[in-house]
Amino acid sequence: MRTTAGWQATGPMALRRTSLERRDLRPDDIAVQVDYCGVCHTDLHALQNYGQHAKAPLVPGHELTGVVTETGPEVTAFSVGDRVAVGNIIDSCGVCAMCRAGQENFCHSFPTLTYGGIDRKDGSTTLGGYSREYVVRDAFAYPLPSGLDPAAAAPLLCAGVTVWEPLRSLGVGPGSRVAVAGLGGLGHLAVKTAVALGAATTVISRTRDKHEDARRLGAHDLIASTDTQQMAAARDTFDVVIDTISAPHDLAPYLRLVAMDGTLSLLGHLGPVTVEAMDLLVGRKKLGSAGSGGRPATAEMLRFCADNGIAADVEVLPSSQVHTALDRLRRNDVRYRFVLDMSDLG
Amino acid sequence: MRTTAGWQATGPMALRRTSLERRDLRPDDIAVQVDYCGVCHTDLHALQNYGQHAKAPLVPGHELTGVVTETGPEVTAFSVGDRVAVGNIIDSCGVCAMCRAGQENFCHSFPTLTYGGIDRKDGSTTLGGYSREYVVRDAFAYPLPSGLDPAAAAPLLCAGVTVWEPLRSLGVGPGSRVAVAGLGGLGHLAVKTAVALGAATTVISRTRDKHEDARRLGAHDLIASTDTQQMAAARDTFDVVIDTISAPHDLAPYLRLVAMDGTLSLLGHLGPVTVEAMDLLVGRKKLGSAGSGGRPATAEMLRFCADNGIAADVEVLPSSQVHTALDRLRRNDVRYRFVLDMSDLG
Repeated sequence: MRTTAGWQATGPMALRRTSLERRDLRPDDIAVQVDYCGVCHTDLHALQNYGQHAKAPLVPGHELTGVVTETGPEVTAFSVGDRVAVGNIIDSCGVCAMCRAGQENFCHSFPTLTYGGIDRKDGSTTLGGYSREYVVRDAFAYPLPSGLDPAAAAPLLCAGVTVWEPLRSLGVGPGSRVAVAGLGGLGHLAVKTAVALGAATTVISRTRDKHEDARRLGAHDLIASTDTQQMAAARDTFDVVIDTISAPHDLAPYLRLVAMDGTLSLLGHLGPVTVEAMDLLVGRKKLGSAGSGGRPATAEMLRFCADNGIAADVEVLPSSQVHTALDRLRRNDVRYRFVLDMSDLG
Repeated sequence: MRTTAGWQATGPMALRRTSLERRDLRPDDIAVQVDYCGVCHTDLHALQNYGQHAKAPLVPGHELTGVVTETGPEVTAFSVGDRVAVGNIIDSCGVCAMCRAGQENFCHSFPTLTYGGIDRKDGSTTLGGYSREYVVRDAFAYPLPSGLDPAAAAPLLCAGVTVWEPLRSLGVGPGSRVAVAGLGGLGHLAVKTAVALGAATTVISRTRDKHEDARRLGAHDLIASTDTQQMAAARDTFDVVIDTISAPHDLAPYLRLVAMDGTLSLLGHLGPVTVEAMDLLVGRKKLGSAGSGGRPATAEMLRFCADNGIAADVEVLPSSQVHTALDRLRRNDVRYRFVLDMSDLG
């Protein structure tokens, strides 16, 4: 076994710096020195539910970037010193229809999660990226393209691919009309990506106080969801509405904005959702959802972001301030993603 | 005013033969001698709710075929003696984005329904096709192609276009894999249409007792929804699942059958529906709904049905047996659509 340092849960919303074990490298493993790790809403949920859904041991973190420090004997895609990134899944069955289609995130026997997952070989619980080292199968690590800042790129590995998948699979490109509801970690990357794909992009926010930010991110317009006149005028005008609102909410006002044959894609709230079938019927609208991505989409997204200068707007904190980051994230006090700098772990 | 005979509601599920008034022809009107009218689930609901949602006067019927008996002075598309069909909408604003797109069924100011609607000119309540004559704007009547039996074609005007719209808009064609859940009035036409479009078509029915019927309708396979093994084996295998089940039901088992990037289209139950967002996310599946169709789609569907020998499997009853038809429809005792023969009205 190898040892490293990391932040492990000791109770709900409580993390302690501790020594962690990493497995010895298997033939197709690489060891990664984690330099940066994004702080995702998923981490917050896991820590809030610690002791309930999320069982011990819990080391959060699934948006990590760093440098390869060692490679297993069968690894050919990476060399020591390569810049590398790891997202929220680190293994899958590899043989089901979804894996064969490059959608490992939909693996029929469930993909292995970067933390809180069960290692497919030794049955151990996976420990995440709030740590100085991560050991991962080469197939689930991605070269970090040059030109991408490793801190700002970290959130691309979960938030970035989560917005990439629906935008791409729904065919967004020049001429598309896209609305992004909610301007947070997911939303701000959805805006940047949709704009770079050539779509006329509108932000929908509760109030107009994010107007300047929306413009700065490249959005062409902003609609206040509380402005009934604006919302009525925008009826049936968007081919794709990306809904990143994390709390349960009425979907009807957002479905109303979808153009004929368009789609409302839910990225935020992932519990049960209720819609009136009539709100889908009128305009032949569709409801979808997206989250995470397969290996091909993740690699494609990273190249696209490098080519188009897209990364997250981040606030980088030393990992010792992880509680500050989580607390402020809980209060939505972040524009738009916290990233932990792991160099203080040694 | 003109007078004709028809069946008008006198109470919940109670109709009485009576004399009805039809308007004098406007310049763009045609008068239609109604020969046949399909008995749609909508008629049943309206009659069950008579006195609640459905206000007096109520003459049901919105799947009608017949012959033109008179034309207004501006009518050029029809002549006296032409075979003609009328569906469930008979007018719309004509100027909104949906009407301009040929989707009058989604008219922003709501299309005028064939019965229980409000006439856009004189404000009267429209009276449906359970009658010997109907007067309608020429734009909302369709030539009935030769080769289509007028009785068997009547249900195409609502049920037929309701299955046509999702199959066409979802791009069903050769190579598509389509499942049809529920084998009733809508379902049996969905099977015939999907097969004629070239799709590999499977029927999903509660039990296997409709197996022979499914084959006869052209289906290539049948899955019993109660057979958990069969349902599990069919996971992720259909590009389009057309759900025609009219009662509220759990959508999860049907979403599971949808292939990646495929769609579950609800035709039957049109109230509020609940799904787990995760069931949409995994496989990037979509939920949609469809009902009725615009003028271009209706005309296209009729031509397609004539070219491919598609019509409903009907049981024709004299209109005096309308209560029998409604009662048996309520008990799902029909394969697959009742059509009333209006010639007994004189």
